[in-house]
Amino acid sequence: MTPTQDSKPALLQELRTLLGAAHVLDEGDLSAWEIDWRKRYRGRALAVVRPGNSEEVAAVVRACAAHGVALVPQGGNTGLVGGGVPDASGSQLLLSLARLNRIRAIDPANLTLTAEAGCVLQVVQEAADGAGLLFPLSLAAEGSCTIGGNLATNAGGTQVLRYGNARELCLGLEVVTATGEIWHGLSGLRKDNTGYDLRDLFIGSEGTLGIITAATLKLHPRPAASMTALAACGSLEHCVALLMGARATLGAGLSGFEVMNRLSLALVARHFPQLAQPLPPASWAVLLELSDHESAEHARSAFEALLEQALEAGEISDAVVAESQAQSHALWHLRESIPLAQSEEGLNIKHDIALAVSSIPAFVAAADAALLRHDAGIRFVNFGHLGDGNLHYNVQAPEGVDGAAFLREQEPAVNRIVYDAVVAHGGSISAEHGIGELKREELAQRKSAVALALMRAIKQALDPQGIMNPGRVLAEP
Amino acid sequence: MTPTQDSKPALLQELRTLLGAAHVLDEGDLSAWEIDWRKRYRGRALAVVRPGNSEEVAAVVRACAAHGVALVPQGGNTGLVGGGVPDASGSQLLLSLARLNRIRAIDPANLTLTAEAGCVLQVVQEAADGAGLLFPLSLAAEGSCTIGGNLATNAGGTQVLRYGNARELCLGLEVVTATGEIWHGLSGLRKDNTGYDLRDLFIGSEGTLGIITAATLKLHPRPAASMTALAACGSLEHCVALLMGARATLGAGLSGFEVMNRLSLALVARHFPQLAQPLPPASWAVLLELSDHESAEHARSAFEALLEQALEAGEISDAVVAESQAQSHALWHLRESIPLAQSEEGLNIKHDIALAVSSIPAFVAAADAALLRHDAGIRFVNFGHLGDGNLHYNVQAPEGVDGAAFLREQEPAVNRIVYDAVVAHGGSISAEHGIGELKREELAQRKSAVALALMRAIKQALDPQGIMNPGRVLAEP
Repeated sequence: MTPTQDSKPALLQELRTLLGAAHVLDEGDLSAWEIDWRKRYRGRALAVVRPGNSEEVAAVVRACAAHGVALVPQGGNTGLVGGGVPDASGSQLLLSLARLNRIRAIDPANLTLTAEAGCVLQVVQEAADGAGLLFPLSLAAEGSCTIGGNLATNAGGTQVLRYGNARELCLGLEVVTATGEIWHGLSGLRKDNTGYDLRDLFIGSEGTLGIITAATLKLHPRPAASMTALAACGSLEHCVALLMGARATLGAGLSGFEVMNRLSLALVARHFPQLAQPLPPASWAVLLELSDHESAEHARSAFEALLEQALEAGEISDAVVAESQAQSHALWHLRESIPLAQSEEGLNIKHDIALAVSSIPAFVAAADAALLRHDAGIRFVNFGHLGDGNLHYNVQAPEGVDGAAFLREQEPAVNRIVYDAVVAHGGSISAEHGIGELKREELAQRKSAVALALMRAIKQALDPQGIMNPGRVLAEP
Repeated sequence: MTPTQDSKPALLQELRTLLGAAHVLDEGDLSAWEIDWRKRYRGRALAVVRPGNSEEVAAVVRACAAHGVALVPQGGNTGLVGGGVPDASGSQLLLSLARLNRIRAIDPANLTLTAEAGCVLQVVQEAADGAGLLFPLSLAAEGSCTIGGNLATNAGGTQVLRYGNARELCLGLEVVTATGEIWHGLSGLRKDNTGYDLRDLFIGSEGTLGIITAATLKLHPRPAASMTALAACGSLEHCVALLMGARATLGAGLSGFEVMNRLSLALVARHFPQLAQPLPPASWAVLLELSDHESAEHARSAFEALLEQALEAGEISDAVVAESQAQSHALWHLRESIPLAQSEEGLNIKHDIALAVSSIPAFVAAADAALLRHDAGIRFVNFGHLGDGNLHYNVQAPEGVDGAAFLREQEPAVNRIVYDAVVAHGGSISAEHGIGELKREELAQRKSAVALALMRAIKQALDPQGIMNPGRVLAEP
């Protein structure tokens, strides 16, 4: 959809009247909004608008609808799939939610917090903490991503095992529809069976059905203590057995269960030798996190009992429980250093995939073997949230091969091999990053025709003009 | 939508060919399918069909679509809002899912179970238990309701506080669409961000968008011990304070938090005097359930610490912790006897409502006062799942007044007063029972115009012929 040459000045004039000239930018350096943070997508916006409240968002949408101009909503611009930057046409309006940044309410007795879409995730976490409560959504970009973007992409992160994805942490939404109306669905209700689940339809729709302007979020009691352990496993099968034991023994206390293959930690050792690695190298390392509602002593004894049992059962060969908060942080820091270590090693081919936990050992065996048949030198940086069945299954160039050349030449073939194996094992090609523009064609090929037809019917019903983040998730018709 | 006079014999002939004559019933006593179990809705079916698998369900839908005949799916026929019986026209086909009753798979390492829609809830619970795991959905009708109906209505029950509604217990669906295609969405994935959330759109849509034929359900580790306590509170404010303390102290171990007002237990005492009531009458009694992953001793000491603290804080005036499983059952039996006790007392006017937990004391004060202004003799049987903000706020006739006459004469006025108060306090007119036919008009008046327009657009998009359970949730256009 392209506006006529004449409509642009008229639209911009309308927008300036609505928002004030300071919040309608169409000159100068707009690259902060036009380029994604990984610099994989470089677009050009008709203009950047920065409405200050939900009514202004609605007015912008109505103006765009009247002029037939498409909108791209953007939060913290930390997305990984190119869903939040305009295309190259110069015809799409970039709508920044950054000024909708108020915490509207905290209700401790209801364990809820209502935040506007542009609130940075860390600000939401801190507001909850200030009320003595926990907002458990946590991910690497939390210092700059926004809660609106987290919900639009149904973000995951490190505590999904215990608290769920962004979807499970949201009780209600306020949304501006494609007709520029506001749906006031900011319920703080835990039960509400009055019709179709509009909330979950907007969550994860990446701005293609409407623009989330605020959300009522679930808070949790803060645990009395958190504790971290690291264990060494000889195989993924043993990791799965340890997970089953941990879930049975620790119940809901188990809040994290991350796996890291040998190369993941070897790259950390190579590029960050100053980081102590408390266990000798093993096929797999498991990072366990326990959130305890009693005390650190209680957490420690639960961990020790679990790990002793796992040692006796031969599921693990070695383990260490953090002795302090500082040691816990150091263990997590190893895990969090993997993305940087692999970057230091050179560009690689990344996959954010999900499988049934029980299918993961077979999937990894099959995908590893198929890739090694393709290129015997390929190296695997494989780590992720085993407790959620979510692997960051990344394929690194052979030792000594240039990463950029490898990415350029091998990405299509490697993706085909990996996604074929994912689909053969009943998995998902996007666990927590979404579809955006990056995986749109892959989705069109791999998702069932019935599901795609249902999705297209919903898109057509809620956005018949096709002005809401067009070309993302679904290809334009 | 009414089929032509001629199309009925042709359709029935087609259906007999598809399913076998034994599974297409259009003669004799069909009241088991045509009348809901509370006998509030008496319809007449064109015929009752009982397909044996998902492909047969799809074939039935295709035949109905070709003939323009509407379908009403039915599971255990235990619904409370008239959503699962045909209307009186004799033109709607009743599609029973009862023969789709296989447990297809149990995956302990993935903590999932895949069941067909017609599986009775208790059978699902038992299958999970047989694998050493827990399927926590639990409600009064569990011996006859089916998992398909539970999902179509997003059932709640007694363990929502810990484990969520039916929605939160489902990872994937298989659905027959209005065009008679099968969406194979039986994912056992905990993360899957590949497009719109079709699963949650079908869950709670009461058969109006498609027919759920199977589901992959989340299982949980079985707790090592469950323990029950009963406490006496002087006010709802104190109940809310106790809830906050219990959530903070017990964390995810708190699996039930039920309140019962004085009259609820007084009616139990009057009509079931053989049931021992361990505490003297109080304004409110609270039933707490703790699911512990360690041991009964651990659960007991956690409960005792909580209740001691609450006694000191003046939140409760008295409390008792069950000494045995038998005592736990006896305490739950008091709670479960309230519906029968109120029936013994006479018909009353029932409301299944939800509010933010923090709004409940103010709501109850306002609604009680408004109803007493309407009729000073009115009595309140008020009980429910305070932990979820869900009250069964039932209005009983004045002492000595005939319940049937009261219901007949007062229901509209009482509903108006109650629902006005619910809406004024930001609540929901249907917490866990759904809309069906019973609350369709109320919904049309009370839901926001924006939400209703979105719902109608989705209905039109996914069921343009209007053959899927028409007139339920939304009025026919």
